[in-house]
Amino acid sequence: MNEIIKSLYDRKSVRVFEDRPIPADMKKTILETAAQAPSAGCQQLYTIIDVTDQAIKDTLADFCDHQPFIAKADMVEVFCADCKKWYDAYIEAGCSPRHPGVGDLMLAVTDATIAAQNTVVAAESLGIGSCYIGDIIENQEDVAKLLHLPDYVFPAAMLVYGWPTDQQKMRKKPERCPQEYIVHENTYHSMDGAELRGMLAHHCKQRSFEDWCAAFCERKYNSDFSKEMTRSVEVYLKQYH
Amino acid sequence: MNEIIKSLYDRKSVRVFEDRPIPADMKKTILETAAQAPSAGCQQLYTIIDVTDQAIKDTLADFCDHQPFIAKADMVEVFCADCKKWYDAYIEAGCSPRHPGVGDLMLAVTDATIAAQNTVVAAESLGIGSCYIGDIIENQEDVAKLLHLPDYVFPAAMLVYGWPTDQQKMRKKPERCPQEYIVHENTYHSMDGAELRGMLAHHCKQRSFEDWCAAFCERKYNSDFSKEMTRSVEVYLKQYH
Repeated sequence: MNEIIKSLYDRKSVRVFEDRPIPADMKKTILETAAQAPSAGCQQLYTIIDVTDQAIKDTLADFCDHQPFIAKADMVEVFCADCKKWYDAYIEAGCSPRHPGVGDLMLAVTDATIAAQNTVVAAESLGIGSCYIGDIIENQEDVAKLLHLPDYVFPAAMLVYGWPTDQQKMRKKPERCPQEYIVHENTYHSMDGAELRGMLAHHCKQRSFEDWCAAFCERKYNSDFSKEMTRSVEVYLKQYH
Repeated sequence: MNEIIKSLYDRKSVRVFEDRPIPADMKKTILETAAQAPSAGCQQLYTIIDVTDQAIKDTLADFCDHQPFIAKADMVEVFCADCKKWYDAYIEAGCSPRHPGVGDLMLAVTDATIAAQNTVVAAESLGIGSCYIGDIIENQEDVAKLLHLPDYVFPAAMLVYGWPTDQQKMRKKPERCPQEYIVHENTYHSMDGAELRGMLAHHCKQRSFEDWCAAFCERKYNSDFSKEMTRSVEVYLKQYH
């Protein structure tokens, strides 16, 4: 295993940071790895909002399911799928572009996320921890107002970064599903009961599959924040004709 | 610049491959870096379809805007945003999960893409080239039938991998936009005409901004394949209640 692959295997989310800034040159380098990522037609269909204002960090921490650690991160970046800037450029050039559609949105969401993950890898290589904040897709009205997001700009991913505390460095990385349940050959395979139990067996060492799933479903999938994600994304989707 | 960041900067898409297989252990390691990527609640909301059947590769090459190089790649992986497997697991455990919604889809699309990008980085570190195929989101009816995709399984990203030819190794990496146009501080900033022209200036060295945009808009944004993306994604979206 080479150093790069080892780094990908070792990387785990960090939610507690040392009170120590990330030097400006490191931040610039990390953000440039986003731009250097693959991108559909090299269009870079994203805009990164670099949140430096503490009041905005505080509000984001609140909007994103009330997670105070977000506000304590030195570096907070929102990777927006941007279907507006190219549309605007075409108009500026006198073209007649069609309105952005959900196909453009999906392409831009993947573009933004590919770019985001490069910054995670780059930060890790410098000893800087990071954590994705999936909750950024919630609360469309509030988030769009706070970050001045116009139509056709969707906050696809948010990341917070900082120096991990010793406790965070020592934390065990959560176990993944065995590869056999994640990789299917040639076609999608709907898993039967035994396979679904096998897929989640690593979670069910201390309690039954039924008990673990019931608790997880209640805490995650059937939770208010999870329902809010869909409500909020439905509002974002209305922008696309 | 450390070795990892250098690798992120150097990586460029590869579309012509040597006729030489990727060893099985390398492939397994690359796919495991997907699983080791960050994932919302460590749920790994994706399923990777490993396409080994030449006939399926050939058909995908056709469905994905007729790009024959896809069929010549030794390794072809479709990263599906999977909102079905957890739903099925909850049912198997006797829970009462809600139906998947577009919030779940978006979270799964980012999960799948984060995982995909880790494989790009891992492959690059082994000297293996890769290329994203954005066209996988087109032709919903045909692709879903070919790959047996059930409802709530969306092909978010597709990657092909192989050993780059010397010509591909020598190819110049396309220039990115200057960082000032990609990173906005604190809030989204709608760019004015001068800024939009600045953003695309690196494309417009040989011809005017107007001419370059007109040609690009025609070839990409207003193209049939681009419209097909939105039609196809609209069909996928209908599955989510």
